[in-house]
Amino acid sequence: MKIVNKDFRISSRQRNQMIDITGQVGSLVAQSGITNGDVMVYCPHTTAAITINENADPSVAHDILLTLEELVPHHRPGYRHSEGNSDAHCKSSIIGCSRQIPLKDKSLNLGTWQGIFFCEFDGPRSRRVIVQIRGE
Amino acid sequence: MKIVNKDFRISSRQRNQMIDITGQVGSLVAQSGITNGDVMVYCPHTTAAITINENADPSVAHDILLTLEELVPHHRPGYRHSEGNSDAHCKSSIIGCSRQIPLKDKSLNLGTWQGIFFCEFDGPRSRRVIVQIRGE
Amino acid sequence: MKIVNKDFRISSRQRNQMIDITGQVGSLVAQSGITNGDVMVYCPHTTAAITINENADPSVAHDILLTLEELVPHHRPGYRHSEGNSDAHCKSSIIGCSRQIPLKDKSLNLGTWQGIFFCEFDGPRSRRVIVQIRGE
Repeated sequence: MKIVNKDFRISSRQRNQMIDITGQVGSLVAQSGITNGDVMVYCPHTTAAITINENADPSVAHDILLTLEELVPHHRPGYRHSEGNSDAHCKSSIIGCSRQIPLKDKSLNLGTWQGIFFCEFDGPRSRRVIVQIRGE
Repeated sequence: MKIVNKDFRISSRQRNQMIDITGQVGSLVAQSGITNGDVMVYCPHTTAAITINENADPSVAHDILLTLEELVPHHRPGYRHSEGNSDAHCKSSIIGCSRQIPLKDKSLNLGTWQGIFFCEFDGPRSRRVIVQIRGE
Repeated sequence: MKIVNKDFRISSRQRNQMIDITGQVGSLVAQSGITNGDVMVYCPHTTAAITINENADPSVAHDILLTLEELVPHHRPGYRHSEGNSDAHCKSSIIGCSRQIPLKDKSLNLGTWQGIFFCEFDGPRSRRVIVQIRGE
């Protein structure tokens, strides 16, 4: 059993943005030398998240961000948090700050249309992504 | 440390449907011979998801699907994705494409009322569920 | 590879409440003697959930609960589940019943502002939290 901890940085350019990080995660998996196991992609920030969805057509990411903005508006009567980014905290908990992907035959066992996205909800910012690869 | 990768197929019959897969996952756990560890149930599709909720009263699944349909309507002004299933992609990211369950004494350590559901958001379709069992 | 299963009980005092359990989970990690690996925090209940978000300013938890209550009202025309807590089941599936956190150098590898919360959606109740720590 081998456990490999890595991280990398990314920069978001918009307040709400989904950034495809499948390539970076896949490279770390390849470098780890692990054949069979799983990968945890973890976001250590409270106004961002990790999701897996279609990365072939960029309209899908657009429509997910649009839906989240309509469900969780930037300003809502009753918000108490003084930093003005309560919406970003809510979206982070709705989407979740990590995802786990099976690793098989030395690569991510994603579905045909699946990509891994870092979801920025309070950008633009410099962010960090933690990747833990486990297996044999 | 043993890592067992399995998968199975299911068929959904409606556009939105929650299918109880607790039995299939539990059988794979029993067959694995693993006593202590965890199970990842992973959906390799971008218009479906995995959740854990009550499977005693089918009204609970009905009410979850109703809530998701009201929050994320099939058609929303502004959607750009041309396949007409943006709602299904959004629901997939809100619910999440995988869940992890502790495994103890050779069985799923679910709560009394918990079952594992495959959530179809763009059916009817034939779908695949990946199950990874890890432990000793 | 070592796998440690623990659990502890908490009591909620309100119908909707986010309870910071970072300290309890961190203590179990310290007691486990595991240096490098991961932790699964699992809620075995179908009307509660686990999330990670800011625990410095309590307004953040308030704003997340407010948002969830506005998105998923206690009573919605069409709910069929007779126990009157369909909203709590929906919130449980939206937030998710578990989270996974990387463990590094004998402690939780959380971000600066991250804490672990048990989310009660149908309290007040006595609840159980399962913690599985894995690694070396």
